[in-house]
Amino acid sequence: MILLYHCVSARSFRPLWTLEECGIPYELKMLPFPPRYAAREYLQINSLGTVPALFDDQVRMTESAAMCQYIAALYGPASMDVKPDEACFGAYLNWLHFGEATLTFPQTIVLRYGRFETPERRNPQVEADYRRWFLARLRAVDAVLSEHEFLCADRFTAADISVGYALMLAEFLDMEPEFPATVREYWRRLKNRDGYRMALDSQYRAAVEQKVSVVPAPLTTP
Amino acid sequence: MILLYHCVSARSFRPLWTLEECGIPYELKMLPFPPRYAAREYLQINSLGTVPALFDDQVRMTESAAMCQYIAALYGPASMDVKPDEACFGAYLNWLHFGEATLTFPQTIVLRYGRFETPERRNPQVEADYRRWFLARLRAVDAVLSEHEFLCADRFTAADISVGYALMLAEFLDMEPEFPATVREYWRRLKNRDGYRMALDSQYRAAVEQKVSVVPAPLTTP
Repeated sequence: MILLYHCVSARSFRPLWTLEECGIPYELKMLPFPPRYAAREYLQINSLGTVPALFDDQVRMTESAAMCQYIAALYGPASMDVKPDEACFGAYLNWLHFGEATLTFPQTIVLRYGRFETPERRNPQVEADYRRWFLARLRAVDAVLSEHEFLCADRFTAADISVGYALMLAEFLDMEPEFPATVREYWRRLKNRDGYRMALDSQYRAAVEQKVSVVPAPLTTP
Repeated sequence: MILLYHCVSARSFRPLWTLEECGIPYELKMLPFPPRYAAREYLQINSLGTVPALFDDQVRMTESAAMCQYIAALYGPASMDVKPDEACFGAYLNWLHFGEATLTFPQTIVLRYGRFETPERRNPQVEADYRRWFLARLRAVDAVLSEHEFLCADRFTAADISVGYALMLAEFLDMEPEFPATVREYWRRLKNRDGYRMALDSQYRAAVEQKVSVVPAPLTTP
């Protein structure tokens, strides 16, 4: 059974959401945020101190967007993954990466220098630089959603989860009002999915059961 | 034929290197760095202004690590890609993402606030934060290389190109002396590959032919 280490609404929400969309069983281990400081014993499991960490028999992964493709390819309904012989394979891989490397990493800079650092180390200029950076990159999402319901293959795939989590994080950072209208509407559609709602339910239930704070990681105060 | 937009030694080196390792023909369009400012007409081709942009018939991609997987899966020798039925599939996807999201993005922060911004917008604290961040994440590479010659599947794959480019960039940022010994040795081995050398040769030849500066993008001064 897949074992997933997770903090409430952190990047590890991506594989959790994928697991729920695929309807496969998993074990969820909740961690306080940030585990690097709040759960030092986790460094024995993942020396980087980052979430997620996913274990599947001998397989060990730490990159959330890669987990979406992995789970979809091995355990998902065929529709969740895009295979190399499909015309949209390139777009699928591109969006899987875009969701994390281009849309999520900049937001971690915003979080760090706007919220997580001690006051004297915060930096409004850097925070503003990467808010702008993120919103500029959303134009690429807007362009495709102006013509399609989903990012690729005209169906919901793991790529929508990769990008969807970036939008979830952006909502925590109060950037949703600045989303282009098509992106805001897309994000509303994603949030209405059963898989998304079950993932939310699952993390809050597990947090309560495992006595971990239910405050979402992006809203954690130092 | 695959068409690749590239700046000397920018992230677009990843697909270029993959194309050379796979031995397939391609057209290379060189751009001055950064194209967003130095080649405004490029915004018509990629409105984000980022390199790489790759075109393959109807396929259009902008994420360099995704391109490595795409090229390897569709055009590479079987050894360059890892398929879902191989035990290392999860590790393969993980390293493909790790190379960009975890090892390259932090270096772009170092470049931005240490080199590319105007002097009054530079920020030694932020630069130092992400130098440290990158070097800490290299421990995960060190851990696997202490026991294996390559990152996964005991052979050279597209994942080695994703991570290899992050090491190439780090050398431009003068961080090679701080690599763990296993990582330094691995990077030396990668640089000795014919595919890597042919990619270097190809970009410099194309830059001269197309009258674009041969100064590597990471060393460009504002």
